[in-house]
Amino acid sequence: MVSRLGLEEVEQIALGAPLLGTGGGGDPYIGKLIARNGLQRHGDVPLVPLKDVPDGQLVIASAMMGAPTVFVEKVPSGTEAVRAFRALEGFLGRRAFATFSIEAGGLNSTIPIGTAATLGIPVLDADGMGRAFPEVQMVSPTLFGIPAAPMTLADEKGNVVLLQRTLTNLWTERFARTVTVDMGGMAMIALYPMSGRQAKRALIPGSISLAARIGKRLSAAWAARSDPIEAVRRITRGSVAFRGRISDVHRRTESGFARGSVQISGAGSDHGRELTLEFQNENLIARIGPRVLAIVPDLISVLDAETGTPITTESLRFGQPVAVLVMPCDPRWRTPKGLELVGPGYFGYRTRYRPFRR
Amino acid sequence: MVSRLGLEEVEQIALGAPLLGTGGGGDPYIGKLIARNGLQRHGDVPLVPLKDVPDGQLVIASAMMGAPTVFVEKVPSGTEAVRAFRALEGFLGRRAFATFSIEAGGLNSTIPIGTAATLGIPVLDADGMGRAFPEVQMVSPTLFGIPAAPMTLADEKGNVVLLQRTLTNLWTERFARTVTVDMGGMAMIALYPMSGRQAKRALIPGSISLAARIGKRLSAAWAARSDPIEAVRRITRGSVAFRGRISDVHRRTESGFARGSVQISGAGSDHGRELTLEFQNENLIARIGPRVLAIVPDLISVLDAETGTPITTESLRFGQPVAVLVMPCDPRWRTPKGLELVGPGYFGYRTRYRPFRR
Repeated sequence: MVSRLGLEEVEQIALGAPLLGTGGGGDPYIGKLIARNGLQRHGDVPLVPLKDVPDGQLVIASAMMGAPTVFVEKVPSGTEAVRAFRALEGFLGRRAFATFSIEAGGLNSTIPIGTAATLGIPVLDADGMGRAFPEVQMVSPTLFGIPAAPMTLADEKGNVVLLQRTLTNLWTERFARTVTVDMGGMAMIALYPMSGRQAKRALIPGSISLAARIGKRLSAAWAARSDPIEAVRRITRGSVAFRGRISDVHRRTESGFARGSVQISGAGSDHGRELTLEFQNENLIARIGPRVLAIVPDLISVLDAETGTPITTESLRFGQPVAVLVMPCDPRWRTPKGLELVGPGYFGYRTRYRPFRR
Repeated sequence: MVSRLGLEEVEQIALGAPLLGTGGGGDPYIGKLIARNGLQRHGDVPLVPLKDVPDGQLVIASAMMGAPTVFVEKVPSGTEAVRAFRALEGFLGRRAFATFSIEAGGLNSTIPIGTAATLGIPVLDADGMGRAFPEVQMVSPTLFGIPAAPMTLADEKGNVVLLQRTLTNLWTERFARTVTVDMGGMAMIALYPMSGRQAKRALIPGSISLAARIGKRLSAAWAARSDPIEAVRRITRGSVAFRGRISDVHRRTESGFARGSVQISGAGSDHGRELTLEFQNENLIARIGPRVLAIVPDLISVLDAETGTPITTESLRFGQPVAVLVMPCDPRWRTPKGLELVGPGYFGYRTRYRPFRR
């Protein structure tokens, strides 16, 4: 059981979290750099189980927002995340007991670790999605009526914006998205301030230790020369839905999102079939011809066929041999309210959600 | 000398201010409604000469932001202006001694009166431009290094956004503009918090009483059946640069601005000549063929040829008989720093600024 996060755990999380990030959540390398930077200067960070947060304490999510394709060119220092966090604490007139990941993605699993190290506070073993999603309102706290605002955004130039009060979390998303675009396509954010009591109801427990476990199993499989994809599949209760080689990638940055699609030509038992995967930061739908293989909110991840390493959408390259792993989403996303918030319809698909079956 | 603002003064200001608004500043009718609403509920508002503000007191501008064409369809109640103002006071942890007009335009001359009435504070006899300009940073406080932020924006839905710290006033403009667009093209704002000492250096004195005087002379001319345009010209030390009839209007709402141009076919001594006027919320340049007649930052206003009433850009209509009045801008706009901020170059014109001559 992980109870402290040090350099080793950050490596494991950075390796494992992108699987839950389903192609989104940004380049894990940058999140890792920021977390390492914080840990090296300020020491390890306690990882607190969600059930242990005191009811009356304040917790705040620390994250990065924007198009992951931008992150590759524009490396943030980590001080902006702390500045955004401090600005929100300042507005609330209270210090936070802990920070947490808004999503179990590549970057946003490790960003809070850097923030926590610098501020000397713990990280919660939890997140707001159990996966990654592209928009601010797409978190389990929204299902529990917890507002994303007050929320702060900071950039590397020194700009700080506070979304003080918003009508809905969708409004927060709208404002935050355009401010992020103004900030150069990327911003460090602090949001979803809530009490420990609210966190225990609304967050998804265990995500950080799960990400660390995935990373650990992956590197253990490499050391033992056993099948890394099988190791990852087992721990996530997922299924390998397709194997093949990337034959086409379409990618564009649009309204602050990385949107596009990828074609995979089947290999092995999938020989002769073509899989199309569409994404908006995260992978949304996998189709073979007209047949839907898997669809959001279930988790669709593309892995390197040889190493089992999850590949984010911005790193998909022509010719890569890959395996597509599908994992069941958190049960609360399968409720009518959950599907309304993050189901196929929200992303413009007419396809009705059906839980993935092997 | 005006020392209190009541219903009569609001009528005068609403009539006179659009002349200084040079086509921008929004429909004066809406600002008048908001100011009247405040005065009827809470009583008259003291008008304080700029020189009388105590050095150590806080003053904050109250205004509306967005494309004036939107205001016509979307009538705000005035409570949003107060909400934005209170939110900024809350962030600063201090109450304001007075409010002031950010620009001497149609709407933004009277908006602060409504806010002041509701909050029980005075209005300063001053503004930040001595005219109207389309962007947040285009005010004399920018020339004195006074930041627009912290700045708040509020809409009628209940959203409140605080631009807490920004790199420059141009950055504030950028953020505020996109947030305004998100808010539906219009927002009520509170900005440029400053000390009385700063206000005395940086604001332009006398604008509110000048607007009231223009309105008063205009209605006196109607009563006396004397020439209203001549009355207005004299009080502003302006010149009638052109007379004619509107023969074409191009107008579009773009990135939160009302942009376009108007053609005027000359009449009387201008017969046979065509004047082209271009605007971005405010009138920017008046040309006859290749010859520049007047250019920003000098004030270019279009008046109804018969009544002398200033016409805002969104009210320009085909066939209207008009007179174009040009007035000298405040001397600080004619300095190199002033011209860099609001001169022809900023609006994309290569034409060098030349003070208007009759």
